Amino acid sequence: MNEMVAQLMQHRSVRSFDPSPVPEADLREIVAAGQMASTSSNVQAYSVIAVTDPALKRELSVLTGNQAYVESCPVFLVWCADLNRLSGAAEAHLEPGADAYADSAESFIVATVDAALAAQNAAIAAESMGYGICYIGGIRNRIEEVSNLLGIPGLAYPVFGMCVGLPDQPSGQRPRLPVEAVLHRNRYDAEKGRGPVAEYDETMTRYLRMRTDGRKSTPWTRIMAEWLTRPNRLHMLEYLKKRGFLKR
Amino acid sequence: MNEMVAQLMQHRSVRSFDPSPVPEADLREIVAAGQMASTSSNVQAYSVIAVTDPALKRELSVLTGNQAYVESCPVFLVWCADLNRLSGAAEAHLEPGADAYADSAESFIVATVDAALAAQNAAIAAESMGYGICYIGGIRNRIEEVSNLLGIPGLAYPVFGMCVGLPDQPSGQRPRLPVEAVLHRNRYDAEKGRGPVAEYDETMTRYLRMRTDGRKSTPWTRIMAEWLTRPNRLHMLEYLKKRGFLKR
Repeated sequence: MNEMVAQLMQHRSVRSFDPSPVPEADLREIVAAGQMASTSSNVQAYSVIAVTDPALKRELSVLTGNQAYVESCPVFLVWCADLNRLSGAAEAHLEPGADAYADSAESFIVATVDAALAAQNAAIAAESMGYGICYIGGIRNRIEEVSNLLGIPGLAYPVFGMCVGLPDQPSGQRPRLPVEAVLHRNRYDAEKGRGPVAEYDETMTRYLRMRTDGRKSTPWTRIMAEWLTRPNRLHMLEYLKKRGFLKR
Repeated sequence: MNEMVAQLMQHRSVRSFDPSPVPEADLREIVAAGQMASTSSNVQAYSVIAVTDPALKRELSVLTGNQAYVESCPVFLVWCADLNRLSGAAEAHLEPGADAYADSAESFIVATVDAALAAQNAAIAAESMGYGICYIGGIRNRIEEVSNLLGIPGLAYPVFGMCVGLPDQPSGQRPRLPVEAVLHRNRYDAEKGRGPVAEYDETMTRYLRMRTDGRKSTPWTRIMAEWLTRPNRLHMLEYLKKRGFLKR
């Protein structure tokens, strides 16, 4: 295993940060590395808002579900799928009244994937520089308020946040499903996940017991059943349509 | 700039491959590195199908828009957003008739982002091992046929493909938007992109001229206008709903 792969295998989410700021040069290097990820047809349909203002971070920590580390991390990156900049850039070349397809499900996928690929590259760059990161899906909890607070325009939406900063304590690494549960050969095999998933239930049960001094031991499959039946962020479809996405 | 960031900055898409196979151990290492990417609530809602069968690769190269490198790469990875495995795993813990939210826009985003983060980690691992990669959005051109061909079940869909193999010739690196076009400070600033975008039009015009011996020089903003007004993959919304996604 080379050093790069070793670093990827070392990833863990960091939720406790040293307050020292991320220098401007590091931030730019992290974002520039993000930009080098692949992008569909070179549309580069994402933006990132670097939030360092303490009052804004405080508000965001409330809006994301009272996650203290959103406030305590020195920089909170809000990764947006963004077809707004693209539409503005293209405007001068469009016939008046021309139909544009930024509102299609396809364009939504393109922008969302572009944002995710860039963010993951940025995460790896940050980790290689000694920073810790944590993705914050809670940015979608009260997404309309977040969008207003940060002035995010139509045809753009915050996909997730990301805390970045120097870790101030070691954090644990959660085991993943066995490779065989996610890797199929030539064709999708719906049966093949079963054995590895059962094995993973045992792995996660052991891990949870160890991390909680025996207090928790819920199998992964039960946690997933709880996740699936929780009416989580059901406002998203309406919000996205209001933003101009997913119309056709 | 450390070595990892330097590697990220060196990324370029590879479309011409040496036919030698990717050894099984390397494939597993690439996928395992993918699995270490962050995942929302540990749902790990993605799968990857490693296509090495020559006949299947040939069919896929046609279905993705006659892209020869889909056939000529030694392994073609089909990255799927996958809430099917999760639903199956959870089943034993669900009350009969329990409402599950795999069909929400929120769950669709979770699965799509999970797939993208894992794929980007895998791409970086592959590149660090000397392989070249190329994302293939064309997997969505005839997505229903691709899904049938690969036996992809409901509540799963192929987000993109990825050619992997040893590069057999050097490829060029497309410049990206200036950092300032994508990086906002504390709040989204719709105006700030304009200067950097105009600068990028010049950069890309120069780059295109250089790559095509002066034959092409279309500014990026015009290419984006063409992209926006092309009715691209408008079947996606209906396809996704048929697959059980985006119902609410």
